[in-house]
Amino acid sequence: MIPSFLPLFLLLSLIQFSKPAENNPSKPNIILIFADDLAYGDLGIYGAKGWKTPNLDQLAKDGTRFTQFYVPHAVCSASRAALLTGAYANRLEIFGALDHTAKHGLNPEETTIAEMLKSQGYQTGMVGKWHLGHLPEFLPTRQGFDHYFGLPYSNDMWPKHPEAKDYYPPLPLIEQEETIALIEDQRELTTWYTAKSLEFIESNQNEPFFLYLAHSMPHVPLFVSDKFKGKSAQGLYGDVMMEIDWSIGEIRKKLTELGLEENTLIIFTSDNGPWLSYGGHAGLTAGLKEGKGTSWDGGIRVPAIFTWPGTIPAGGVQTQAAMTIDILPTISEITQAPLPHLTLDGSSIWSLVQGKKGEPIKPYFAYYNTNELQAVIFGKWKLVFPHTYRTIPEGTIPRNDGLPVKYTQIKLEDPQLYDLSKDLGESTDVSQANPEILKLLNDFAEEARLELGDALTGRTGTGNRKAGRIQP
Amino acid sequence: MIPSFLPLFLLLSLIQFSKPAENNPSKPNIILIFADDLAYGDLGIYGAKGWKTPNLDQLAKDGTRFTQFYVPHAVCSASRAALLTGAYANRLEIFGALDHTAKHGLNPEETTIAEMLKSQGYQTGMVGKWHLGHLPEFLPTRQGFDHYFGLPYSNDMWPKHPEAKDYYPPLPLIEQEETIALIEDQRELTTWYTAKSLEFIESNQNEPFFLYLAHSMPHVPLFVSDKFKGKSAQGLYGDVMMEIDWSIGEIRKKLTELGLEENTLIIFTSDNGPWLSYGGHAGLTAGLKEGKGTSWDGGIRVPAIFTWPGTIPAGGVQTQAAMTIDILPTISEITQAPLPHLTLDGSSIWSLVQGKKGEPIKPYFAYYNTNELQAVIFGKWKLVFPHTYRTIPEGTIPRNDGLPVKYTQIKLEDPQLYDLSKDLGESTDVSQANPEILKLLNDFAEEARLELGDALTGRTGTGNRKAGRIQP
Repeated sequence: MIPSFLPLFLLLSLIQFSKPAENNPSKPNIILIFADDLAYGDLGIYGAKGWKTPNLDQLAKDGTRFTQFYVPHAVCSASRAALLTGAYANRLEIFGALDHTAKHGLNPEETTIAEMLKSQGYQTGMVGKWHLGHLPEFLPTRQGFDHYFGLPYSNDMWPKHPEAKDYYPPLPLIEQEETIALIEDQRELTTWYTAKSLEFIESNQNEPFFLYLAHSMPHVPLFVSDKFKGKSAQGLYGDVMMEIDWSIGEIRKKLTELGLEENTLIIFTSDNGPWLSYGGHAGLTAGLKEGKGTSWDGGIRVPAIFTWPGTIPAGGVQTQAAMTIDILPTISEITQAPLPHLTLDGSSIWSLVQGKKGEPIKPYFAYYNTNELQAVIFGKWKLVFPHTYRTIPEGTIPRNDGLPVKYTQIKLEDPQLYDLSKDLGESTDVSQANPEILKLLNDFAEEARLELGDALTGRTGTGNRKAGRIQP
Repeated sequence: MIPSFLPLFLLLSLIQFSKPAENNPSKPNIILIFADDLAYGDLGIYGAKGWKTPNLDQLAKDGTRFTQFYVPHAVCSASRAALLTGAYANRLEIFGALDHTAKHGLNPEETTIAEMLKSQGYQTGMVGKWHLGHLPEFLPTRQGFDHYFGLPYSNDMWPKHPEAKDYYPPLPLIEQEETIALIEDQRELTTWYTAKSLEFIESNQNEPFFLYLAHSMPHVPLFVSDKFKGKSAQGLYGDVMMEIDWSIGEIRKKLTELGLEENTLIIFTSDNGPWLSYGGHAGLTAGLKEGKGTSWDGGIRVPAIFTWPGTIPAGGVQTQAAMTIDILPTISEITQAPLPHLTLDGSSIWSLVQGKKGEPIKPYFAYYNTNELQAVIFGKWKLVFPHTYRTIPEGTIPRNDGLPVKYTQIKLEDPQLYDLSKDLGESTDVSQANPEILKLLNDFAEEARLELGDALTGRTGTGNRKAGRIQP
């Protein structure tokens, strides 16, 4: 029998050769969707109430979702640097949130996911919020993206900022490296990002492509187009969430229309937890402690969905811890793209994404802004070091008009060990009952301090690199 | 047999009662698409070479296209006023092209197609270029449109105008009555208009809707999104035409997706002929004489397609003359909406749209800017009166970089009668051989001058109304 199949086999090989993008398991299209300040509890499937996210829920049902997925920095620029390079952002000297005065950005010498995939022949596009340097030298077009359309930094960095009105220039909408509009009102932003994403997908349907869609919403100021205005029971935040959900639905519809569903890996996650001082204009922590700008789980734990029909089993729920720094190495494993030559911090979680269970194999670190190593996570265990963090004073009445209340700073005086499997709210120190876990996590922390430094203990690391800077 | 059908019949009545928008032949959705400076020869089915318009060609194949369809004024604001009111724009005191200094606009007392359809329960939306007064008092939201998204005037009225750089303020993109962005580069404009149109259709799919989509392209300055950049053989103008064609395709796809095809009348036409001084950045006259800003057929004859699957026969070609002022009365006949109480100039061409042939029943007038009655058209006959018009001097080399050459003014010294059926290029005066036709058209002209005035013969009309004006 075998010889009689040979001509057909050869024919199929030729077809595959002439259309390398189609159903090539090592060259799937990759769509990475990164929402801004979208909280762990903001999707229906993660417990959201007050609005519906049918498309995101379906995305999760069609693939694997993680219940303990982290960002390494609960702040915008740093979180994005880590996502795109597979390294902690303090290693890259990217802290906090850059604004229009920044003379620096992600170093062009760093290798982003886009640059890594260029080596495999991918077409690369970015739509949405960049926030890794707004000067031309640092834009996505200089970091491996063939196409760019979006905002260079956060959408509240504009003249209508509620607390810094005279500080910001008009908010530019950039295409490639040119400002195509100055935004006065953001209600069409999600629509425009979606249209541009569909355009990129359609234009590159015949080759492997990588699309990085970084929605500006639901970061404040919140804006929604007419099609979702008033659609949720919760109000504006819910409407905005429903429009983001719509956007994901449109993208999936386009993939179906083009027959690309089974050849496309979609990853959906967020850059940090909710901006709680904005009250009803912030997302849902689903019981996690605190929010954005802290290393409590409310700040760093985010939804994460990996969907690739036919390759990733449907309906998976992965409870093992993972982090955004693992996305680049995972994509490297899938596409056989060589890893960047610089030291990375992430490692492939492809087996976890595929639903395999396992013991935690490595620690994850939660850093904040000024290179403070605030916490170490190892599976269900989390060791939090003494540090000062922001919180909303008891008795403060949250607002629902887009204006923030004031945070206050409080200090955690002693290290605390939590068992997150039993204590999602990080309330009970269990270090006394688990001395060997405490030692293990402290040892991990010491290694991290030696390599990357730590502002809390006054340490300088040996493995830090430099951000990109323009000459003054 | 009849009684046994009765319950089913009643049931169907009830279904129809609860969903009045579906398949109600007197309440179809209406989509009126009005391109800017798109020329008679710019669609494949009208002879275009150098680019493809498959969606517009298919639209024509699915309905009826006119080969002698006119605008009454070969200039932007006037042409739009006539389209939306069913009256000659000089009757409404709307001349020329309004800019950011205009203190006037279409009188709010006039009845637009949108206002007429509001009386029949239609949801009304406008996307694109308005150009009938940019002050809040005159915006689409004050003229019967529930929703508005677009530019208030022409897309060349901005600081990058090649010949008036310091004259114009930043170009505002308006939603409802607010500026949501200042446009620096227009390459996403067609994409944004399309996205907003799809949003309007989707949001109003369960009720009868009227969408007026007035594309800013292919008016100069030409811009195209990445998805059509370099796609045509002709260059930028061809790319822009292909993107407009894409836009119509997206709209039809959305109608199919929502099952609204057979319940939707689409009308496609343009506001005037090509802006010939822009050379390769202007459209194709397909042999017609002169272009925009003149009353020669190149300025006033435009493509016109009416498509309503199941109601208007497919593949129709209507050679009888008609004009944009007839669209409002035609929609009135279809929807049974009462006509505006003010005097109109158009009349229903529903029978022509449905493919019925007939003799010409009324004259059409071509006015220009300062109320000059420059020509009278009666079927195949066209009488042109002595007047001065702009032309490009012989020997001028056309540019293809978006910059215009200079027009020169020349005078037509004597009246000329043309038989357009034999002389599409308006070159041979046939008045001597057709004295009775000449008398008939001169009589029509006299009636028009008595009613509407005529700057060429120094006459004041009795039927003119006033534009809307804000108090100084």
